[in-house]
Amino acid sequence: MAVYTDIAEDDLRWFLTEYDAGTLLSYKGIAEGVENSNFLLHTSKAPLILTLYEKRVEKSDLPFFLGLMQHLSAGGLSCPLPLPRKDGALLGTLSGRPAALISFLEGMWLRKPEAKHCREVGKALAQMHVAGEGFALTRPNALSLEGWQVLWDKSEARADEVEPGLQNEIRSELNFLRAHWPKDLPDGVIHADLFPDNVFFLGDELSGLIDFYFACNDLLAYDVSICLNAWCFEKDGAYNITKGMQMLEGYQSVRPLSEAEIKALPVLSRGSALRFFLTRLYDWLTTPEGAMVTKKDPLEYLRKLRFHRQISSPVEYGLSL
Amino acid sequence: MAVYTDIAEDDLRWFLTEYDAGTLLSYKGIAEGVENSNFLLHTSKAPLILTLYEKRVEKSDLPFFLGLMQHLSAGGLSCPLPLPRKDGALLGTLSGRPAALISFLEGMWLRKPEAKHCREVGKALAQMHVAGEGFALTRPNALSLEGWQVLWDKSEARADEVEPGLQNEIRSELNFLRAHWPKDLPDGVIHADLFPDNVFFLGDELSGLIDFYFACNDLLAYDVSICLNAWCFEKDGAYNITKGMQMLEGYQSVRPLSEAEIKALPVLSRGSALRFFLTRLYDWLTTPEGAMVTKKDPLEYLRKLRFHRQISSPVEYGLSL
Repeated sequence: MAVYTDIAEDDLRWFLTEYDAGTLLSYKGIAEGVENSNFLLHTSKAPLILTLYEKRVEKSDLPFFLGLMQHLSAGGLSCPLPLPRKDGALLGTLSGRPAALISFLEGMWLRKPEAKHCREVGKALAQMHVAGEGFALTRPNALSLEGWQVLWDKSEARADEVEPGLQNEIRSELNFLRAHWPKDLPDGVIHADLFPDNVFFLGDELSGLIDFYFACNDLLAYDVSICLNAWCFEKDGAYNITKGMQMLEGYQSVRPLSEAEIKALPVLSRGSALRFFLTRLYDWLTTPEGAMVTKKDPLEYLRKLRFHRQISSPVEYGLSL
Repeated sequence: MAVYTDIAEDDLRWFLTEYDAGTLLSYKGIAEGVENSNFLLHTSKAPLILTLYEKRVEKSDLPFFLGLMQHLSAGGLSCPLPLPRKDGALLGTLSGRPAALISFLEGMWLRKPEAKHCREVGKALAQMHVAGEGFALTRPNALSLEGWQVLWDKSEARADEVEPGLQNEIRSELNFLRAHWPKDLPDGVIHADLFPDNVFFLGDELSGLIDFYFACNDLLAYDVSICLNAWCFEKDGAYNITKGMQMLEGYQSVRPLSEAEIKALPVLSRGSALRFFLTRLYDWLTTPEGAMVTKKDPLEYLRKLRFHRQISSPVEYGLSL
């Protein structure tokens, strides 16, 4: 939720002459995206999103993100599509920042998703995994085992401030995951952040996926485990097996999981719970009091991690074997 | 620049059933308006602005603001038009706040307005003054002489922190204005905050005025003096007489100023410069360091105030007498 950079109307009009985007009618900074500045443009043609990439995004990653959206869109996935400039480039410069024009996706994210929506999300995730095949660029997942260790090294000393005993618990969790992390599962391009605010619906129909700025190459089933964590727990911390069942059935209706992937779900889910726990823990410990940013509770993901730890069979996620 | 309140998609859909607004396609919090939360809605009909009124706006003032927009729009002014609910009311409730749906105005505000734009602004201001005639509700200007004194009482003790000697200068300015403030000039509904970000243009054509949340009843020529302060000074502090001339000619092409109004321009301009100086001074002294809000420099308006103080004839504003 942020607009970091204002744009002068003249500069924007000049920027748009590089595109075949119609005449500019209005632009508004929108409260969306934490890493970038986003504007909703109305033109004489279609509405567009203009994104200015702020410092937190690596400029060298932008061809991967923009190319991926183009590749997925060409593969039939409903997602934002970067508009090429007249010279074919997907990226320009505006207000001193790398900038892209991207198609506007109608739809709303659900504050209270139900089981039927989880099914649609599972389907769309699998569609994304299939559509991602053949994409030429790659980007390693900076937030996998090694990245977790880096985050943990920065937080470990103060972890017990958040909950006594946390230091030991996370240390041994990291050891466990390093020893048991699966290696030979199908991999490909994953979204890696498919939370409810990144999935749009029109009524009960899924209208598209957005925000591919964590996308990377990793195990496809790891992406499934992120969605189980993000969609299938209730506010009180309980796992909703109906949502899990719908999510997994939806996914498998497009791309069936292999036996090895299914077997790995508990350990993958421990990993993805730990991943969000660690970034939240780091933000929790480093964001100054009074900063106008909502701090997300890291303990939510600690509770999810503990749930996955006591899973004895993937059936408990709602899988019909 | 603020979105204070998030809206659940379900609540919004429920809210919209009270209106004949089409089917909701999307809504985005926009970085516009300092006092309220604003959302840009796309529907199957036309785009709309949804405003949630936050605490800083007096609920009892809302019928004045919304009724005024309706009145001005009916009088031919291009400005946002509140959409009535099916029961005829202009105001509903959403997320626990008073809320209104308002037509979306295409256009952009000019970061670098030129003299020709000042002419259009002058014309539109006069059109607003004429269109405001006959509006049944009234709202006193809380930021005139008395309100200035209230603000000053809160800031006086610390004023010399901003610039040595300020305490004496502003005290005697207030005394002067109290003694010389004009009383018998034409009055009516004024905008009271017609800064560049509240005027939209499409190309060089003015497409509309927005943000009537400071509107009130006061001297019409006082509103002109606000626009001289807001539009006709350059970044270096110099008064641009060409812009002033265009602004005043534009205004008078719709509503000629009386001799008394013209004579009063210097004192009115001192008053409006002081008004913005005082609110900025108060914010400057009370906004904590590090708050994510842009503090506006009060000294900009002190310099304008000093300029008006040395005016010996209204001709110096660019008026052809």
